[in-house]
Amino acid sequence: MSGRTWDVYLSGEIHSDWRERIEQGVEAAGLPVSFSAPVTDHAASDDAGVGTLGDEDEAFWRDHKGAGVNAIRTQTLIHDADVVVVRFGDKYRQWNAAFDAGFAAALGKPIVTLHDEELDHALKEVDRGALATARTSEQVVDVLRYVIEGQLPG
Amino acid sequence: MSGRTWDVYLSGEIHSDWRERIEQGVEAAGLPVSFSAPVTDHAASDDAGVGTLGDEDEAFWRDHKGAGVNAIRTQTLIHDADVVVVRFGDKYRQWNAAFDAGFAAALGKPIVTLHDEELDHALKEVDRGALATARTSEQVVDVLRYVIEGQLPG
Amino acid sequence: MSGRTWDVYLSGEIHSDWRERIEQGVEAAGLPVSFSAPVTDHAASDDAGVGTLGDEDEAFWRDHKGAGVNAIRTQTLIHDADVVVVRFGDKYRQWNAAFDAGFAAALGKPIVTLHDEELDHALKEVDRGALATARTSEQVVDVLRYVIEGQLPG
Amino acid sequence: MSGRTWDVYLSGEIHSDWRERIEQGVEAAGLPVSFSAPVTDHAASDDAGVGTLGDEDEAFWRDHKGAGVNAIRTQTLIHDADVVVVRFGDKYRQWNAAFDAGFAAALGKPIVTLHDEELDHALKEVDRGALATARTSEQVVDVLRYVIEGQLPG
Amino acid sequence: MSGRTWDVYLSGEIHSDWRERIEQGVEAAGLPVSFSAPVTDHAASDDAGVGTLGDEDEAFWRDHKGAGVNAIRTQTLIHDADVVVVRFGDKYRQWNAAFDAGFAAALGKPIVTLHDEELDHALKEVDRGALATARTSEQVVDVLRYVIEGQLPG
Amino acid sequence: MSGRTWDVYLSGEIHSDWRERIEQGVEAAGLPVSFSAPVTDHAASDDAGVGTLGDEDEAFWRDHKGAGVNAIRTQTLIHDADVVVVRFGDKYRQWNAAFDAGFAAALGKPIVTLHDEELDHALKEVDRGALATARTSEQVVDVLRYVIEGQLPG
Amino acid sequence: MSGRTWDVYLSGEIHSDWRERIEQGVEAAGLPVSFSAPVTDHAASDDAGVGTLGDEDEAFWRDHKGAGVNAIRTQTLIHDADVVVVRFGDKYRQWNAAFDAGFAAALGKPIVTLHDEELDHALKEVDRGALATARTSEQVVDVLRYVIEGQLPG
Amino acid sequence: MSGRTWDVYLSGEIHSDWRERIEQGVEAAGLPVSFSAPVTDHAASDDAGVGTLGDEDEAFWRDHKGAGVNAIRTQTLIHDADVVVVRFGDKYRQWNAAFDAGFAAALGKPIVTLHDEELDHALKEVDRGALATARTSEQVVDVLRYVIEGQLPG
Repeated sequence: MSGRTWDVYLSGEIHSDWRERIEQGVEAAGLPVSFSAPVTDHAASDDAGVGTLGDEDEAFWRDHKGAGVNAIRTQTLIHDADVVVVRFGDKYRQWNAAFDAGFAAALGKPIVTLHDEELDHALKEVDRGALATARTSEQVVDVLRYVIEGQLPG
Repeated sequence: MSGRTWDVYLSGEIHSDWRERIEQGVEAAGLPVSFSAPVTDHAASDDAGVGTLGDEDEAFWRDHKGAGVNAIRTQTLIHDADVVVVRFGDKYRQWNAAFDAGFAAALGKPIVTLHDEELDHALKEVDRGALATARTSEQVVDVLRYVIEGQLPG
Repeated sequence: MSGRTWDVYLSGEIHSDWRERIEQGVEAAGLPVSFSAPVTDHAASDDAGVGTLGDEDEAFWRDHKGAGVNAIRTQTLIHDADVVVVRFGDKYRQWNAAFDAGFAAALGKPIVTLHDEELDHALKEVDRGALATARTSEQVVDVLRYVIEGQLPG
Repeated sequence: MSGRTWDVYLSGEIHSDWRERIEQGVEAAGLPVSFSAPVTDHAASDDAGVGTLGDEDEAFWRDHKGAGVNAIRTQTLIHDADVVVVRFGDKYRQWNAAFDAGFAAALGKPIVTLHDEELDHALKEVDRGALATARTSEQVVDVLRYVIEGQLPG
Repeated sequence: MSGRTWDVYLSGEIHSDWRERIEQGVEAAGLPVSFSAPVTDHAASDDAGVGTLGDEDEAFWRDHKGAGVNAIRTQTLIHDADVVVVRFGDKYRQWNAAFDAGFAAALGKPIVTLHDEELDHALKEVDRGALATARTSEQVVDVLRYVIEGQLPG
Repeated sequence: MSGRTWDVYLSGEIHSDWRERIEQGVEAAGLPVSFSAPVTDHAASDDAGVGTLGDEDEAFWRDHKGAGVNAIRTQTLIHDADVVVVRFGDKYRQWNAAFDAGFAAALGKPIVTLHDEELDHALKEVDRGALATARTSEQVVDVLRYVIEGQLPG
Repeated sequence: MSGRTWDVYLSGEIHSDWRERIEQGVEAAGLPVSFSAPVTDHAASDDAGVGTLGDEDEAFWRDHKGAGVNAIRTQTLIHDADVVVVRFGDKYRQWNAAFDAGFAAALGKPIVTLHDEELDHALKEVDRGALATARTSEQVVDVLRYVIEGQLPG
Repeated sequence: MSGRTWDVYLSGEIHSDWRERIEQGVEAAGLPVSFSAPVTDHAASDDAGVGTLGDEDEAFWRDHKGAGVNAIRTQTLIHDADVVVVRFGDKYRQWNAAFDAGFAAALGKPIVTLHDEELDHALKEVDRGALATARTSEQVVDVLRYVIEGQLPG
């Protein structure tokens, strides 16, 4: 499989360093992976619509406009992805992460969920739509290494 | 359009009477709608796997088994639906509702979301994937009446 | 082909009686056709959003809301249609009719356009995406009779 | 996302410099975008059929022939595009632009519309099928910069 | 499988009684089959365009117009069919039959070809795209009886 | 969900009474299910090709011909099915059952596998592609009752 | 559109130099086109099955085997193609060319047919499924130049 | 077809050197082929889940977890493949190979099966879903050479 680069989309939580840990682990392992993600700058993401297309008076439409611009990015990258990793943290409702997971599932994309055990029951439908549920970024790296190179960790 | 029955799937919250109110409103309006929904008996839904296929020691796999059995129903009905209504309440995380919305969106199904304003910001991506956002069951009935019969309320 | 009913969606102009003339001709010919259409009450159509989901201050979002509710109807019915007839009149820009035609074309639906010769050049791309271009409602009836029963007029 | 080039199709008006302004803005911003478009030489476009495949006596078939040849280009490029920008100007009916938008919408392509406010009401169905509506080429560049690099202007 | 009706499209040759023989055999066997076919009145089929939409001076466009109208029927019925039977006789080139076969193959429809041995070599690609090649209408009936009821002849 | 009939395809083993037990259980439970299956008469199934289309000298082509005729039935019914149940017994290799499972999985059909524990390891990929794994026909009935009516046994 | 290479599949007649003339014309015009085609060595094509997988006694299965091996190539290349050119000559029945055209049409590929006027009536359904009908290889080159570069000849 | 690399997925038996023989033959022939395959280290494959995501008590879930991780790889590579070769050996049940074949068939991928004659009857449905059945790795190389370069052996 020389030459194949795996496109991995990292959806979900934007308030911890889980993406960086996956990216560092993958780099350390020398895996041919190209990562993509939503815009993870929270303030920029919230202003995606009004910051590019002009202000809005109503909060609902401000969000609507922003979500539209963000969706240009996220839908395109999810369509392109070989694997979609979806992270749920302990804060915020992260409905967009679950929405991404459902979207990816309907497209037949392999999904890896990443969350703590305490969220298991609440996430059971999302986890059932995934092919793997990891607890740590390191496990995601281990899964990617195995998937790409067939090697189990140490 | 004589004879057409509209299949409407009612996804989400199972702890309030929003479905009944939509169904009653639709019946009162005499609209040709056939409703479907996930199993809304919370206890039965949680036991969908172990209650049919045998017990499990681990909570994760108990949920996994149950989510699989529930998905046989929900995926089939969402595939069949003309319109998917997704309700978010103020309790629970309802990631399965957001997952359903993403799934329906990728299938190109028209989505109507139903929730209070206080959830607007958290649900902005889901709302952007919808063709309408309603605040009350009565508004959903109004939308269905208009969509099916072209009549506005009042 | 006993029993087959043909679903025909009538898209476009809402200010003349072209739909009625097709429906009357089809009824006179005794053809098994079930017609569907967008909401053709112009005022109701313009108020589809604010009349069901609550008012809006901004004209853009009022239209956006209305177009969303109308799309629940039109997308569903176009997906269901066997044949899509698209009428362009001499007034208004009717971009929604051309949008419907493009949408139907990408779905692989057979399209019949209906318009006067003076619009031919402006509609050449839309006509190229159609399998027939008619000048009168009566010709559309003739096409439907032939398609369904194999009979030519006269 | 190193290495990803975004394919952006620029549909619609061919009588102003909106494409050039987007292309210059994108180049100035150093964004990895590859643009495509219909043939924008109006005379050549009108002669696409008779200029390659031989003359026609009837205007209708001359247009039909030309629209077929043009469609080889436009359908291919829209299928390839990550994002489709559709521009409506104040002249001409531009039904082909609305047709392109409907075609792209049915394929699930993210659409950005570009037009003045005075066309809002007439374009409401097309705008509803889009993820963003811009007023200027500069706003389109801002959207692309955000979508690709996550950076807001200013 | 009580209640299921099988939709069988009979494509190809229109100058022999092969369709009638299949229909009579299926009726005699009491099989739940609904047949459809192109318009088999050769003269009407050739005039499908000019007879409904007005005359044409050029033979090419007369044929083009007619083929468009016929395609409204054939594409719809092939899309609906469970099984497509394609008959090749010893006269005429019947490229439309081979075109139908290719169209049905790309849609994943089960195909049964029906022709004499002397055409085997010329039809090898079409036969390879089929799930059965029959020599007589009676064999097609036998195949349908087996497929629907699981009964072999004799 | 009044009126909905669930189409359930029963794939796999043809040498035990597992289908009858499911059908009896479903009938006893009064569930609205319509069953379909491959031809389960082993001798007829093996002769499906030569018994309808004429004899073959070579065993390979005899099987090929028969498998083609059988595929007309099985592909059509799997495409139609809401749920595909795949049974693996302790005899024969039943590669066709695993093939059906893979085919159904790629179509996004909900799959229920049915087999003893001793086959678990060998069937792990097939089970992973399923939404439920049952050990007995009675469990399949329980799953269908829950899926259709939301009722757990007992 | 810098960098885009157009994949053009050349289907049909293998007994004249029409492919070479297109390739030379495209090369002379400096167009970025990558051509593909079926195997055009008639003897090799006929022996594609028995020459790779072993002999067959029956002519039908010899052809069947060969057509299967050829289809691995042709289906893959048609799926990859941006444009499919289909040539019909005055000899042979070329049902495979018409089959390719139907296959490409159902996939939504732009088709260009290439044949003399005397075949127009017999090919009317195939031509209707195409976006252009050319009479000479040079016209196909002209179409490709226009489609790719927007330049008309002369 | 300069530049095209054919992606060939090698599914099935992992206890003989059939893959190596195909790869060596293809290399000797200088064919532009990129191979992919499931993880063929049997021990690693069995531990794919527990080795990356943590241990499991139950054998069923250990397998389930492993099959999920393996499916991330296999589904992705089958989706990418131009041609899928499926090998059945004389040991083990290899239901995953038949599952892969069914999955690939539903995706419309060209399949080549590879097995001894003694498995012909048991594999007749799988072989019918393939475009070629080879007996040796060398024959697979011959098929690939013909498919890619149009050259027969010898």
